[in-house]
Amino acid sequence: MLKTNDPSLHSWIQISPECHFPIQNLPFGIFQAPDRDARVGVAIGDYVLDVYVLTQHRLFDMLDIVDPTVFHRPYLNDFMALGRDIWRQVRGRISELLRNDNPEIRDNRSLMAECLLKQKEVQMLMPVRVPNYTDFYSSIEHATNVGTMFRDPANALLPNWKHLPVGYHGRASSIIPSGMPVRRPKGQAKPADADAPTFGPTKQLDFELEVAFITGQPTQLGTSLTTKEAEEYIFGLVLFNDWSARDIQAWEYVPLGPFLAKNFASSVSPWVVTLDALEPFRVPGPVQDPKVLPYLEFEGNKNLDINLEVTLQSPTLPQEQVICRSNYKHLYWNMNQQLAHHTVNGCNIEVGDMYASGTISGPTPDSYGSMLELTWRGTKPLQLPDGSERKFLHDGDVVTMRGYAERNGVRIGFGEVRAEILPAL
Amino acid sequence: MLKTNDPSLHSWIQISPECHFPIQNLPFGIFQAPDRDARVGVAIGDYVLDVYVLTQHRLFDMLDIVDPTVFHRPYLNDFMALGRDIWRQVRGRISELLRNDNPEIRDNRSLMAECLLKQKEVQMLMPVRVPNYTDFYSSIEHATNVGTMFRDPANALLPNWKHLPVGYHGRASSIIPSGMPVRRPKGQAKPADADAPTFGPTKQLDFELEVAFITGQPTQLGTSLTTKEAEEYIFGLVLFNDWSARDIQAWEYVPLGPFLAKNFASSVSPWVVTLDALEPFRVPGPVQDPKVLPYLEFEGNKNLDINLEVTLQSPTLPQEQVICRSNYKHLYWNMNQQLAHHTVNGCNIEVGDMYASGTISGPTPDSYGSMLELTWRGTKPLQLPDGSERKFLHDGDVVTMRGYAERNGVRIGFGEVRAEILPAL
Repeated sequence: MLKTNDPSLHSWIQISPECHFPIQNLPFGIFQAPDRDARVGVAIGDYVLDVYVLTQHRLFDMLDIVDPTVFHRPYLNDFMALGRDIWRQVRGRISELLRNDNPEIRDNRSLMAECLLKQKEVQMLMPVRVPNYTDFYSSIEHATNVGTMFRDPANALLPNWKHLPVGYHGRASSIIPSGMPVRRPKGQAKPADADAPTFGPTKQLDFELEVAFITGQPTQLGTSLTTKEAEEYIFGLVLFNDWSARDIQAWEYVPLGPFLAKNFASSVSPWVVTLDALEPFRVPGPVQDPKVLPYLEFEGNKNLDINLEVTLQSPTLPQEQVICRSNYKHLYWNMNQQLAHHTVNGCNIEVGDMYASGTISGPTPDSYGSMLELTWRGTKPLQLPDGSERKFLHDGDVVTMRGYAERNGVRIGFGEVRAEILPAL
Repeated sequence: MLKTNDPSLHSWIQISPECHFPIQNLPFGIFQAPDRDARVGVAIGDYVLDVYVLTQHRLFDMLDIVDPTVFHRPYLNDFMALGRDIWRQVRGRISELLRNDNPEIRDNRSLMAECLLKQKEVQMLMPVRVPNYTDFYSSIEHATNVGTMFRDPANALLPNWKHLPVGYHGRASSIIPSGMPVRRPKGQAKPADADAPTFGPTKQLDFELEVAFITGQPTQLGTSLTTKEAEEYIFGLVLFNDWSARDIQAWEYVPLGPFLAKNFASSVSPWVVTLDALEPFRVPGPVQDPKVLPYLEFEGNKNLDINLEVTLQSPTLPQEQVICRSNYKHLYWNMNQQLAHHTVNGCNIEVGDMYASGTISGPTPDSYGSMLELTWRGTKPLQLPDGSERKFLHDGDVVTMRGYAERNGVRIGFGEVRAEILPAL
């Protein structure tokens, strides 16, 4: 266990127990502010710590970083490319600087004013440039629900599902940060009773509750990672909303998979929570039966206990309504297996690649991670306090996802990923 | 018609009629040589023209290019980002400089020696950095062949196929230039008579004969391109070999499409032939029946008459054997439709994005663009002159694809994309 995760650590910054960003977290992101351009920040309490300013004041001089301008970039990629040892050195040093017994910033008023900004006064941007985006399908509950609805309840899981972490390539260009609204997409759909497809705005706009991990190190084409090695390549995790248009998807997806039903937007939370910060929250995953092939075997607890929730707001529903509570620990396939599988054929990975989990549904109906499942394809609409109901999302709806891990009074949070639905153009 | 395409144009460089790179072509690529680092080049005859050197000698001063170092980069992206008017200015100026009546380089020995290198003495690199890669499935012959073999001969085409250009997202990171060998991938497959999948090197390694177009201009998320606008965004085309592992594909691809069966490598030809150079080769495409939705309608001839061939060599077969002759004009869906469809939901495109056509099979068995189809899933092996046969590709096989358009004695060629199969590690 790293010292940086010790529950007894406290910062000289006041942080409430419900806050997602105690000194044990220290997630990385990219922010800009009226007085400074895009750069690397770390969340602490209600503040953002400007990491580049720290380097300018020579507070990182003892670290093995040759070029401190990696913190003065509009993406985390160049910092991540330095490798896990540097990630840990930087997180360790920032933990030290923020600790209540360290005077370096605490007792330097002008430095403090320069390097600490209120989160509500900065704008968070995309944390990474995403060269490649993969979406897995690793929740057995979600795959079973979808298979039951669309195919055959008696054979809901396809034959390959328990043998490999099914995944597909998604669209990297349309991954956007929290806060950016999402335009309702138009496309083709074919109503069950129609002879031909029709064109128009999707009538079945949906969210998908996912968590994505990000690789911070590349591999060479032709090489593979073991489940053990995989972890050394993972920088951290974000919340991921894989927006979906179900009517477009149902019509287009055979035989090559989802395309326009997904690639109009995916939203991510702005703070990348490091895998190091999440180490205390390791738990066992579901038993995998049948036994997996040797390249997918792993040792130790590789799932993570992260509470997840989805809320809905609308112009007539200003109070957020929780519509789903789930947990990342439900996933059948873990990150190590996903990455080992992804590279077993020699596929190369890059710095900044994003790997979403697939919709994280739990075992109970209130833990289903999409409207598709929560309303059982629209047959059981959600009843909302304003008297309205939802089969799928309406224009003006705001979907917010939040997540945190908690143990021993320490809450390691992701913040949120939020977006409003705009009407089709 | 642009003056640059005039069949009567001749260069002061001697160029044989079979050469792919007459003065009417002028494709762009990225090369490096022992005496110079990666930069933009243009193919002319057996030579590469160093475009950056031209700018250093102020031969582009009359063009609207603010920063000539866009030609001193390891990718074409920054040049392409300048837009179609600049693409045309540059191609026009290079045509002028190479014309037999222009003395600017012709009569300047030292400049000629500096800016013209023999193609066989340079190394060609990836022409573009590919932020996003999409693979379509636009040959009706290929889709029909695959549907017949894997599903139902009576309903070989799925219901959506004639209503939209089916496509999916592929892997950008593993797109490699011609000449780089391809390692036979390992993965899961499930033999028909087995209870569980097995792991090992693919037994059904295949090529797919494709052509890819490249966008040189971006769109904003939430906006769409019409079929008419689409063309203004397309910089040029390359040959594309979409390597495939059929046994891995058959097991993994439901329900989300191909993944590890494809993402271990795709090979591209190094010269990007501009859409401008290909304008004289417009031909009508197949009649589309049923009528397409309005957003997929288009005016004029949007297919391109490009002859394509695939050859096979091996250690025991040093002479190349032609195993497929096809033509890009066979495609049911054209580039304009593919790009209009891709963006109709607001999906944003980026500079350098690559869009492969899908396997380009023609109507006759010798025009099928994959081993899968040529050997009808291995049931009709290819008989080769050395006495060997092929159901799928063997280690040591070299697959080469070539393509050119030809009219009025002018041959606009792509050169080739070639790769050798290395044994699995």
